Amino acid sequence: MIIVSKNNPIVKELSSLKEKKGRKLTNSFLVEGEKMVRECANGGLKIRRIVLREDYSGEKYSYPVVTLGKDAFRAVCDAATPQSIAAEVELPHDLLCKPEKSCLLLDGVSDPANVGAIIRTANAAGYRELYLADCADPFSPKCVRASMSGVFHVKIMQGSREKVLSVLGDIPLIAADMRGENVFSFVPPPKFVLAVGNEGNGLSDAVRERATHTVRIPMESTAESLNVAVSAGIIMYALR
Amino acid sequence: MIIVSKNNPIVKELSSLKEKKGRKLTNSFLVEGEKMVRECANGGLKIRRIVLREDYSGEKYSYPVVTLGKDAFRAVCDAATPQSIAAEVELPHDLLCKPEKSCLLLDGVSDPANVGAIIRTANAAGYRELYLADCADPFSPKCVRASMSGVFHVKIMQGSREKVLSVLGDIPLIAADMRGENVFSFVPPPKFVLAVGNEGNGLSDAVRERATHTVRIPMESTAESLNVAVSAGIIMYALR
Repeated sequence: MIIVSKNNPIVKELSSLKEKKGRKLTNSFLVEGEKMVRECANGGLKIRRIVLREDYSGEKYSYPVVTLGKDAFRAVCDAATPQSIAAEVELPHDLLCKPEKSCLLLDGVSDPANVGAIIRTANAAGYRELYLADCADPFSPKCVRASMSGVFHVKIMQGSREKVLSVLGDIPLIAADMRGENVFSFVPPPKFVLAVGNEGNGLSDAVRERATHTVRIPMESTAESLNVAVSAGIIMYALR
Repeated sequence: MIIVSKNNPIVKELSSLKEKKGRKLTNSFLVEGEKMVRECANGGLKIRRIVLREDYSGEKYSYPVVTLGKDAFRAVCDAATPQSIAAEVELPHDLLCKPEKSCLLLDGVSDPANVGAIIRTANAAGYRELYLADCADPFSPKCVRASMSGVFHVKIMQGSREKVLSVLGDIPLIAADMRGENVFSFVPPPKFVLAVGNEGNGLSDAVRERATHTVRIPMESTAESLNVAVSAGIIMYALR
């Protein structure tokens, strides 16, 4: 059966996953595109159903399938030029707990593309435990897309700044800040939390006060800051 | 005099700067926001006129001024929530010539936010000569914004791949590619061109063939690539 009406309840429910409210209600998020769906199936998250456009002719999956007409499929997807497959995936609820290894704390990063790019880099650089306090929702379509398949492979723990800091306890906390020491000559402790802050305002006072070290990326005098995803990437690799 | 009509020819001309065609016709681009205009005035580019919203009350500049009503000002600006000042700035036409120092070659980078973020990082990391072949327009509003004030401080040279490669001559060319050697153990020649490629397809064959070295950023097995602005940043700093 092909669902063609955008008013069909299933189409409406899937469309609602673009908004945080919808994701919360259904406890799921949408993964769009062939490659992302394949990575998701390999990544261990629970796929509830596969959403196909009527003309889909790619790989077959052993999950429940719903097939949509072109307009209905477009209504469900967030991408400007959607591919013909998506998956509704259960939201992982990684419980807030102490990290096993060196990890990342995102403190108020508000742009979903930045949160996604940081998750992508963290997965590549081997920072597999991420703490998000007061950040853009990592399961929004824009963030999932920017993370490539990063959100399927890292542990994403969310909570208030206070709770996150309390869970991190006394693990050395390295703050990324313009007034720190040169990250390229800094020798990190064996296990640490790397904290990066908001695009405009940097780290919150609470995180700054908790920091045991502060590092900066050296810059020419005509530059005053870097994009947060770029600087997080540079520092993550510098501290590896 | 305050111009209120969106149909006023000046407003129409300024609005046209959002599109490449308009920028080409007027040989200018628009810089939005107080901080960016200040940086631009300090950066050496030629400001043609300052565009103010009627309620502007900030710093005064000694350039010709045009004052617009709220609606007209909004029509001119690209930012979702524009500040009350912008500047029309002459397009710099940096002539294609050999670099003085180590430089950057952007080969088909197509997302304006990525081009802007790379310009921002290049300016910070001291790569002041940028060659753009087949990339997003560096003077689009989105790119100028993402570059922060980077576009005012670096030399941006544009041309076809063939022309750019011919100008770069026999300077060692380091290609960023997944099949290269680990960038963190690589020792670069004293003067080099670092080339980064398109978001989806990487470097063009022409640039790949011209490469004298190839470097990669080491990644965990669950990751297959990084955002191009992030990886350009990591490599630029690793090779400094």
